[in-house]
Amino acid sequence: MKTVFSPRHLGHADQVELVAGAIVPGFELPSRAEYVVDRIKTVGLGPVLPPAVHDLSTAHKVHRKDYLDFLPTIWDRWTAEGRSGTALPFTWPTRGLRGDAPPEFIDGLLGYYSFDAGCGVVEGTWDAIKSSHDVALTAAGLVQAGDRAAFALCRPPGHHAGAGFMGGYCYINNAAVAAQWFRDNGARRVSILDVDYHHGNGTQEIFYSRADVQVINLHADPMQEYPYFLGHADERGAGAGEGYNLNYPMRFGTSWETWSASLDDACDRLLAYQPDVVVVSLGVDTFEKDPISKFKLKTEDFPKIGARIARLDLPTLFVMEGGYAVAEIGVNAAGVLTGFEGRS
Amino acid sequence: MKTVFSPRHLGHADQVELVAGAIVPGFELPSRAEYVVDRIKTVGLGPVLPPAVHDLSTAHKVHRKDYLDFLPTIWDRWTAEGRSGTALPFTWPTRGLRGDAPPEFIDGLLGYYSFDAGCGVVEGTWDAIKSSHDVALTAAGLVQAGDRAAFALCRPPGHHAGAGFMGGYCYINNAAVAAQWFRDNGARRVSILDVDYHHGNGTQEIFYSRADVQVINLHADPMQEYPYFLGHADERGAGAGEGYNLNYPMRFGTSWETWSASLDDACDRLLAYQPDVVVVSLGVDTFEKDPISKFKLKTEDFPKIGARIARLDLPTLFVMEGGYAVAEIGVNAAGVLTGFEGRS
Ligand SMILES: [Zn+2]
Ligand SMILES: [Zn+2]
Repeated sequence: MKTVFSPRHLGHADQVELVAGAIVPGFELPSRAEYVVDRIKTVGLGPVLPPAVHDLSTAHKVHRKDYLDFLPTIWDRWTAEGRSGTALPFTWPTRGLRGDAPPEFIDGLLGYYSFDAGCGVVEGTWDAIKSSHDVALTAAGLVQAGDRAAFALCRPPGHHAGAGFMGGYCYINNAAVAAQWFRDNGARRVSILDVDYHHGNGTQEIFYSRADVQVINLHADPMQEYPYFLGHADERGAGAGEGYNLNYPMRFGTSWETWSASLDDACDRLLAYQPDVVVVSLGVDTFEKDPISKFKLKTEDFPKIGARIARLDLPTLFVMEGGYAVAEIGVNAAGVLTGFEGRS
Repeated sequence: MKTVFSPRHLGHADQVELVAGAIVPGFELPSRAEYVVDRIKTVGLGPVLPPAVHDLSTAHKVHRKDYLDFLPTIWDRWTAEGRSGTALPFTWPTRGLRGDAPPEFIDGLLGYYSFDAGCGVVEGTWDAIKSSHDVALTAAGLVQAGDRAAFALCRPPGHHAGAGFMGGYCYINNAAVAAQWFRDNGARRVSILDVDYHHGNGTQEIFYSRADVQVINLHADPMQEYPYFLGHADERGAGAGEGYNLNYPMRFGTSWETWSASLDDACDRLLAYQPDVVVVSLGVDTFEKDPISKFKLKTEDFPKIGARIARLDLPTLFVMEGGYAVAEIGVNAAGVLTGFEGRS
C-alpha cells in the first residue's frame, strides 16, 4: 500500500510537557515518524508520497470554527507576551466553571481550548498540524480512488482532539476529518476502529450523536489511564448516535489473548454496521516496552492486528496515532501494515 | 481586633507550580503569612491567638465528601507511585469529558479534583490546610462571641476552592466554611465580600443557588485574568440564589478611583441584603506592585478599604486570601485592619 508522509512534521519539535509534577521533553518526538517512514521503506511497503494541500472545509465539519481559528494564532499570541519555549496552559474550565466564554488572554485561551498540559505549541507546530491534516486527506483520497488501503503517516496525531479542544499531543483530529471526508464523498457509513493504547476521546466526542460514523475504541481503562475522563463501557452514543459508539476498556497488564478477544468482538460489531470504509486509528503504544503505557503486546502481535483487520475485507485507511517506544514504533507500525497485506 | 494564626501553615512550603510553560517556585510562599503576622504585632492590632482544633463537619456542608476525603490522601498516593517533589495534575475533565466518574490513579484524581496546575501538594500541605480551616473557624467564634471583628490569618487561602475542587493555591474554602458556621450558629443571613484581585470562583460556586449567603466579588475581569472561566457580571445566582451573587469585574490597570466606586456600590448592595455578619475575603493582590496582578491600588488605599467596610457597622470576620508582593503584604493587610479600626 501507499504511504503519505510530510517532512513538515519536523517543525513540531522540542516541545515540553507536564508529567508527574515536572516539565519534561515531550514524548511525542519527531523521530517517531522518521522511524516509521524508514521502516516502511526498509520493508518495501510501497511508495511514500507527499500530501496534496487541502483546505480546512472538511475539518470545519468536525471541529468548532473558533477552535480552528485559534490554533494558527497560538504561537504569535504566546510570543507577543514576551514568552518563548513551549506554549502551555495552566488552568482549565472544569465542572463548576463556564465553558461558554472564551477569554481574551493567551493563558486563558490555551486552557479554554485544551484539557491537559501535554499539548504544547512551538513555532513550527501549526505547520506540522496542517501537514498532518493534509496527509490524512491525501491518503483518504487514495482509498476513495480505489486503493484497497493506504497509510496516512500523520504527525502530530489526532484522536484526543475534540470538536473544540486539543490534548494528548493532538490538535486536529485527522481520523475524524478523514471519516467526514469519506462521508462527503460517497460513503454511506464509516467505521473508525481505534486500536491506540489510549482512549480516542476526541473521536468519540465528535461523532457521539451521529449514526453515520461508528466509533470503536480498544484502550486502557480510563479508571486507570489517561485520558481518565472518557472511555467507559457505558458510553454507547446519544440520540441518533445511540449504539454507534463502542468502548472496550481493558486493565493494566492486558496481553494479546485478552486484547485480541476484544478486537474480534469489535470486528464483528463493525461488520454488523456494514460500513463502506474503515478508518483505523493506528497507535502502537500497546507495545510491552512502550515507556508511557501498560499493555503487554509483543512485536509479533502487531502483524496479527493487521491480518485481522484485513479479514474485514473493506477499504481501509490507516491513520497514525500514538506509540512512544521510539526505536520499535517503526517495526510495530509497519508490522500492522505488512500483516494487513498478508506478508506478516 | 484579635488575630488567629497557626505556625502549622509552614508545612506547606517549597511547592512548585506551572506558569507560562515552566515549573516555577510557588508564588504562595510561607513568608507571606509571616510578614502579615509580624506586621500585626508591629502595629499592635491586638492579640495573636492559636486556633482551636475543629472537626470537618461544617466543611462537609460546603464541600463534597469525596473531595474532603481525597485531600488528606494526596501525598501518600503520590509517594506510593515512587514520586517526590510536588503533586500536580496534568489533565482535567473539561467540557466533552465526564465529571461523574473519579478515576483510580493519582494523576487522574488530581485532575478530577482541581482546575489548574497551580495547586501543588507536598508532605505538609494537608496539615497546613487543616490548620488554616481551624484558624477561620476559631476567628469566626470570636465574632460570634461578641467581638466587633476578628482576623483569620489563613494560609493556604481558600476562595478559589469549590465544592469539589482545589485550584489557585486554595484547597478548603475557609471563608465559605466560616460563612456556613455563622449560619449554623444563629446568623440568618451572611454576606461574603471578596476584595481579592482574583475572582473567588469557589465561593461563588458553593453558594450560587442559596439565598442565605450573599456573595459579592470585586476582581479582575475574567476575560483578562485568572481564573478566566468565572466571574462575569451576568452571573447573578441561580434558583433560590438568584440575585444573591454579585460580580464587579474590572479591567487591567484599575486604580483606586474605579475600584472604590465598585466597593461603594457593593457596600450599598450588601446593606440592602441586611446580613447579620460579614465575611471579608481579604486579598491584597490588588496592590500596584503585586508580581502576578495588574491593578494599581497603592499602600495608602488599603486603610480606606478597611474604613469603608467599618462603615457597614456589622460584625466582621476578615479571612486572609491572596497577595504576593511578599514584603508589602504585611503592610497592606494590616493597613486594611487598622483602617477598619479607625486608625488608618
Ligand atoms: Zn496513545
Ligand atoms: Zn488573588
